Amino acid sequence: MVNYPTPKINSGVSNNTKSIKTQHGKRGMCLEDDLNVTNKYYLDTSKAVIHKKPTPIQIVKVDYVTRSTAKITEAYFRKPSTTDYNGVYRQKAIDFEAKETASMNSFPLKSIHKHQLDHLENVIKHGCLAFVIIRFTAYDQTFLVKAKDVIELSKGSKRSIPYKWFLRFAYLIPFGLTPPVDYLKIIDDLYF
Amino acid sequence: MVNYPTPKINSGVSNNTKSIKTQHGKRGMCLEDDLNVTNKYYLDTSKAVIHKKPTPIQIVKVDYVTRSTAKITEAYFRKPSTTDYNGVYRQKAIDFEAKETASMNSFPLKSIHKHQLDHLENVIKHGCLAFVIIRFTAYDQTFLVKAKDVIELSKGSKRSIPYKWFLRFAYLIPFGLTPPVDYLKIIDDLYF
Repeated sequence: MVNYPTPKINSGVSNNTKSIKTQHGKRGMCLEDDLNVTNKYYLDTSKAVIHKKPTPIQIVKVDYVTRSTAKITEAYFRKPSTTDYNGVYRQKAIDFEAKETASMNSFPLKSIHKHQLDHLENVIKHGCLAFVIIRFTAYDQTFLVKAKDVIELSKGSKRSIPYKWFLRFAYLIPFGLTPPVDYLKIIDDLYF
Repeated sequence: MVNYPTPKINSGVSNNTKSIKTQHGKRGMCLEDDLNVTNKYYLDTSKAVIHKKPTPIQIVKVDYVTRSTAKITEAYFRKPSTTDYNGVYRQKAIDFEAKETASMNSFPLKSIHKHQLDHLENVIKHGCLAFVIIRFTAYDQTFLVKAKDVIELSKGSKRSIPYKWFLRFAYLIPFGLTPPVDYLKIIDDLYF
């Protein structure tokens, strides 16, 4: 069994302003970590099978230290040709990309590569539920946006999606503890 | 546009026995290459979106050669926790593992890790079409086996699946040129 993060009990006696501020604000986990915990929770509770794909790496040189131990001594990061996350939920294929932005005003569209948008467009055609999870770290708010919306916006003239757009048209994923980012709740409401 | 392998025209005048033998036998491409070409063909013809996942790697040390070039100088291969291939086809999630064996008699079950079998079992529960593609290189025959059959057999006492079992209960994927391993043809017959 795996230990999911348990709620931190607030003693209520702290007179450290910084720590009081922290209660409401940042939780110190990045979106990727939150999604890993969330997907593990979905897997352990048999709710869905969704995994992050490994980072694509171009291997150049490998040393065989022993007969069984291969040590990679030269390799480079490659640009991913697909999104980072996919899997299956309620008989449906699931595919999504996740991004964080430190901006307070907008989400820069260049953070999602052209081939990732193409990939999302492709999987939608075949019946996949495709979306993008975007976190504004400044507000500690995590939104789910339908992939088709991001694709449409990226085909327009704008270079970024204003924060205000998210408040109107995206779906705020409520912050929780188990799981931290319960995005399938939004998927349930949107598609089932 | 991508050039798919075109049929090699046999001049019929070769008196090299080796090359004559080669016509009927090995095509010099490993199963992974054949599947990559096949999946690219499916993608380009809008038939399906199925990708091989990158090899999971544990990165230990990275040198920043320049501001933008990161060189990985120490890394190790990790055991995959899922299968190698997944995607979407005809509204259905697809998930499979692919293996080659040089054996003439049987396919050793240990080539598929326990956690990969668990993964296949999990995705089946959620409505995924899950299978294993196994090539006997000695016969240059590639079979599609339902994942549930491999899972059942792996729970039994046997350590391998006899070649004869494949001839009776697995589905031979006809060898083609474009694409080389048209496994979705079998999926059409089995599930649609």
